Amino acid sequence: MNSERIRILITGGTFDKEYNELTGELYFKDSHIPDMLRLGRCRLDIDIRTLMMIDSLQMTDEDRQLILEHCARCAERRIVITHGTDTMEQTAAVLGRSIADKTIVLTGAMAPYAFGSSDGLFNLGTALAFVQTLPPGVYVAMNGRCFPWNSVHKNRASGVFESTV
Amino acid sequence: MNSERIRILITGGTFDKEYNELTGELYFKDSHIPDMLRLGRCRLDIDIRTLMMIDSLQMTDEDRQLILEHCARCAERRIVITHGTDTMEQTAAVLGRSIADKTIVLTGAMAPYAFGSSDGLFNLGTALAFVQTLPPGVYVAMNGRCFPWNSVHKNRASGVFESTV
Amino acid sequence: MNSERIRILITGGTFDKEYNELTGELYFKDSHIPDMLRLGRCRLDIDIRTLMMIDSLQMTDEDRQLILEHCARCAERRIVITHGTDTMEQTAAVLGRSIADKTIVLTGAMAPYAFGSSDGLFNLGTALAFVQTLPPGVYVAMNGRCFPWNSVHKNRASGVFESTV
Amino acid sequence: MNSERIRILITGGTFDKEYNELTGELYFKDSHIPDMLRLGRCRLDIDIRTLMMIDSLQMTDEDRQLILEHCARCAERRIVITHGTDTMEQTAAVLGRSIADKTIVLTGAMAPYAFGSSDGLFNLGTALAFVQTLPPGVYVAMNGRCFPWNSVHKNRASGVFESTV
Repeated sequence: MNSERIRILITGGTFDKEYNELTGELYFKDSHIPDMLRLGRCRLDIDIRTLMMIDSLQMTDEDRQLILEHCARCAERRIVITHGTDTMEQTAAVLGRSIADKTIVLTGAMAPYAFGSSDGLFNLGTALAFVQTLPPGVYVAMNGRCFPWNSVHKNRASGVFESTV
Repeated sequence: MNSERIRILITGGTFDKEYNELTGELYFKDSHIPDMLRLGRCRLDIDIRTLMMIDSLQMTDEDRQLILEHCARCAERRIVITHGTDTMEQTAAVLGRSIADKTIVLTGAMAPYAFGSSDGLFNLGTALAFVQTLPPGVYVAMNGRCFPWNSVHKNRASGVFESTV
Repeated sequence: MNSERIRILITGGTFDKEYNELTGELYFKDSHIPDMLRLGRCRLDIDIRTLMMIDSLQMTDEDRQLILEHCARCAERRIVITHGTDTMEQTAAVLGRSIADKTIVLTGAMAPYAFGSSDGLFNLGTALAFVQTLPPGVYVAMNGRCFPWNSVHKNRASGVFESTV
Repeated sequence: MNSERIRILITGGTFDKEYNELTGELYFKDSHIPDMLRLGRCRLDIDIRTLMMIDSLQMTDEDRQLILEHCARCAERRIVITHGTDTMEQTAAVLGRSIADKTIVLTGAMAPYAFGSSDGLFNLGTALAFVQTLPPGVYVAMNGRCFPWNSVHKNRASGVFESTV
């Protein structure tokens, strides 16, 4: 299908949380995305950049501007962004209002990849497929589904992403 | 995006192999697809049918006719087929020559899902995304890529699916 | 070797922590000890009791008295206690000063069993072997080693249990 | 407890089987014992030697003599041997008839460590604990239990090791 290079931008989120066995707390170290692509035997032409490694509840307007600038300026027209689920829709909205000529898919995970029962690998698979096939626009890929940026909402009681239309 | 019901047809393959600890041999028991959808927190409307549980090297012409009939007759227009990788291209060709009005995506795994380092969950994610977004046709989804049925080949030396065009 | 019934007392600790995917926090639900014994194909005669499910930093003197009473009163002479690592040596001391006629082995884990890279299954194996073979006394089994209750210390910088003699 | 160096002799067995994703067959590559000791945060003084990497059904009298010689000649008095379960009792008998002054514990696994639901880590934990605490003699450690070499039998219908006395 597509043979263009895809850019993956890493921002952190549950995807990449680790357990610190000395403090008993969750923290960020290195991203697991390269390991996950290896596990998926992925042969797409991919360029990975880590922009930040944060919980999306801590993400500021400046952080979102940084993500927006990277998306606008990079050579690739197909971009996957790994992101915490709590504010994924806000970041999607910032991108959606400004970028019209690229296909951008945000995805995340409800449980850390390192913890064994994560949806991360499944979600990364869906995001990489959606980004190859969807027309320009900004989307959120979660729960096997893909939502346009302006009609998605995370139901915090259930942890499920829903359409607002 | 799509909100149509998707049909998943299970035929076996490495995806679903298990280790028999009494004999030391690999065998098929129940499919892991329901577990994998649960792990992926998948919320698509999906109907799963197990047609057979076999190694694709054992798949006969009759088996392929059975798969073809199910694809042709089911109500769903979007179908994912889990299949052994060794003869996935043959089954795709049987379907591709006969079915023009449905989107059918075959996928599989290089290592059993139960064995811990499988590409199965990633591939299932890509297949479910491709089946929602691609136009009618028969495709093979492996290694993060999606190939039309008439231009795909498994390189047996590397275990990687390649385009023949 | 031993064919006596062994009692396992569960008190919580990192062993049994889970990830709450709605809040992003760690919490206790059910103990994983029965699953771990099943995974280990364990055929020992074991009776499991959950006394509490807490982080050992929250353990009070009353909690320790409760553990002591259970150890003193139960019919079994061989007891394994799963416990958070942070205050394991304090609980071991409370038991060690009072109980002389039973073999009691405390063990724990540096990472939650549910998180994939835990030492829990290894430690449970060592604890169950030590409790079958050691003479009456109170011990801590961590890092493949077994320490008498009055000569063990957790090095918090390294996360390793060390002998104080 | 014990602070002597322990020798681990690797002979292969289910413990160390891998899945070859190009052929779909099980095979031996490198031993997982070092990874397992790391996962167990093991701090025992251990020296590991790989003697062979074979299925124990293929083990010959010459192979068993090689194991016997290593056990007899090595400096360590405490030895753990990882071994396929099918003929573990035969090897234990060869060692038990010849060696009286060392503590030797054979252990194995019913499912490969690499496959995710293995008893290997649990069994390795029990073997390392038994080898530190038992008097000289040759033993088999499986299912949480430890059997003297001359009173153990693998029940092939159930996959469980049983006492013959």
